[in-house]
Amino acid sequence: MSITHPAGFTAAGVVAGLKSTGAKDLALVVNTGPRFDSATVFTANRCKANPVLWSQEVVKDGIVRAVVLNSGGANCYTGAEGFQTTHAVAEKVADQLGIGAIDVVVCSTGLIGLANSRDDLLAAVEAVYAALSTDGGTAAAEAIMTTDSVSKQSVVEGAGWSIGGMAKGAGMLAPALATMLVVITTDAVIAAADLDTALRAATRVSFDRLDSDGCMSTNDTVTVLASGASGITPSLDDFTHALTRVCTDLASQLLKDAEGADHEIAITTLNAASEDEAVEVSRSVARSNLFKAAVFGKDPNWGRVLASVGTTSAAFDPADLDVAMNGVWVCRNSTPAEDPAGVDLSAREVSVTIDLKAGDARATVWTNDLTHAYVHENSAYSS
Amino acid sequence: MSITHPAGFTAAGVVAGLKSTGAKDLALVVNTGPRFDSATVFTANRCKANPVLWSQEVVKDGIVRAVVLNSGGANCYTGAEGFQTTHAVAEKVADQLGIGAIDVVVCSTGLIGLANSRDDLLAAVEAVYAALSTDGGTAAAEAIMTTDSVSKQSVVEGAGWSIGGMAKGAGMLAPALATMLVVITTDAVIAAADLDTALRAATRVSFDRLDSDGCMSTNDTVTVLASGASGITPSLDDFTHALTRVCTDLASQLLKDAEGADHEIAITTLNAASEDEAVEVSRSVARSNLFKAAVFGKDPNWGRVLASVGTTSAAFDPADLDVAMNGVWVCRNSTPAEDPAGVDLSAREVSVTIDLKAGDARATVWTNDLTHAYVHENSAYSS
Repeated sequence: MSITHPAGFTAAGVVAGLKSTGAKDLALVVNTGPRFDSATVFTANRCKANPVLWSQEVVKDGIVRAVVLNSGGANCYTGAEGFQTTHAVAEKVADQLGIGAIDVVVCSTGLIGLANSRDDLLAAVEAVYAALSTDGGTAAAEAIMTTDSVSKQSVVEGAGWSIGGMAKGAGMLAPALATMLVVITTDAVIAAADLDTALRAATRVSFDRLDSDGCMSTNDTVTVLASGASGITPSLDDFTHALTRVCTDLASQLLKDAEGADHEIAITTLNAASEDEAVEVSRSVARSNLFKAAVFGKDPNWGRVLASVGTTSAAFDPADLDVAMNGVWVCRNSTPAEDPAGVDLSAREVSVTIDLKAGDARATVWTNDLTHAYVHENSAYSS
Repeated sequence: MSITHPAGFTAAGVVAGLKSTGAKDLALVVNTGPRFDSATVFTANRCKANPVLWSQEVVKDGIVRAVVLNSGGANCYTGAEGFQTTHAVAEKVADQLGIGAIDVVVCSTGLIGLANSRDDLLAAVEAVYAALSTDGGTAAAEAIMTTDSVSKQSVVEGAGWSIGGMAKGAGMLAPALATMLVVITTDAVIAAADLDTALRAATRVSFDRLDSDGCMSTNDTVTVLASGASGITPSLDDFTHALTRVCTDLASQLLKDAEGADHEIAITTLNAASEDEAVEVSRSVARSNLFKAAVFGKDPNWGRVLASVGTTSAAFDPADLDVAMNGVWVCRNSTPAEDPAGVDLSAREVSVTIDLKAGDARATVWTNDLTHAYVHENSAYSS
């Protein structure tokens, strides 16, 4: 269900033939109205794929009527020819739906530098249009998978309205989004400007705080479509709260499916001078290959935590830091405290807490451990 | 030989018993004069180990007469007790040599948060003093090894003067130094201020451009001692040139011995608007786990290079970038060019070249690939 759970949406997923496995690789999500408000955030990477370059123009007026997504090729660094493929796919979708191409967001994911077959894509657009249905959400979610082992979907109910979402991504989850495509739908009545405010608030504390391997993709896109089909206008606070729940749920599913990971690690920085500094400190630990390899080895190596904290510009006294792992305060006042042997790292979920004693702000960044399987997947799989 | 090659130095390496293997773990290097000029650079990490906190005071007057180094424990985050151990070792060395403790630099390397046995260290200081000799350089170089598979030494000859150096470090090599201890000696006559200028120039293009795994240590120290025993005063240019050769040679040895690496990767950014921007771009690629895993898999994945370049703030046109791997220009004008199949990644040495077309500055950053063995060593070995 997911994206077709709210009223006013149809979706489908079909085989376009881009994936060598023969799995579904083209998805279409259509807003059937009556409203077509939208908001979108894109990768902060300056090297953007063709579908991002196209879609940045599409979203400018706050109106999006359809999102077409393919896996099996990122259409990034494929030149003018690649851009024309994106454009042609948007035109084809628009023709089928009887709308303008400028209201069609295009998303692609897969290998960079590889041209997708335009003919295969255009033929598949006809097939995916023919397959559109009000329960096509799962098929669409499956069609955008790459190295994902499961599809990611989420639904949150409001009072007479709801939000649905689907996401793809497994690894390469980094700040300011990642190799991650997300489509979220709602039948609430909400104007594009409010939708944008809500989306930025929700992504700031969910997708933006995932940092699986520090790498930032060229194709990341999170789009929200609002059909208004429920006829109900929630408060912006209520809507933002629900949207944040969907984004956090999808982010959690992405983290749990990160390529080759054995552990999900939540790194919380407490008592920072500002939320930005708390994020900076947590992210520095999330980026430490040494720390992440230690977690894989079930070694509660808090020295590697402090070595990362020391690379930041956040306010703190290096001689007065506290660190806990899974609730055991292994370091107090920058000296060894409780016995690290009491830290059991056998479970998948690991928490690291850093107390900066410099203010009252806090933030959590989520990452994975660095494993043999991560190296294997990312040396064997081109993306 | 190395550090005892220039006139005016003695050195030794002995077993203090800190290492469970029973290998040598305490080294002493003594400048016997007639001059005692010195210059030192320390880790940029704000979380500094006790020996760094001590040695920062020692070096302030430009006079250093001895360097004592232990492996088997970093003496970092060991509190006031740990600082007192550092101080006691410096005092003991000073007592033996009949000098002041404030002229004794102390360096430590090994696990963070672990207290070193003060008694073992003090007893070993007597032994290492007794073992001092003018051909003790190799023993000293061996005593500072941790996960190093070989000792690192270098000698460069000037006109009647010379420079010798020893280094330890294998992995954790990051900007602004790394888990790296380096002692360099010279018998040239050179004042401390000039020595400082030369050392900063040399490290800027050598140790500072190593980025094995992006992690920065708490203990890094590079110290140069000048005895003046040759009686010869080289020009600052000549001296800086020779010192840069020693630093580059030692850096290259560190890179080749990085934990678990299969490849040494030189990432050169050409035609940048400034040298700083060239370093920023090269370093962004050196930090990409995805790219480094691809090199391990012998996959010439230039998309991952561009995805990293796009995360920087350097001046360039995202639609007009060129990328070569091992001399094959796989990407021209941000589109696929020569066939990546022509890139042979079977040799250990890999070159990546990025042409930003934004100026005339250039810089190279060196890194390693991300391998199963890296994960293994850093999950199994506490440091």
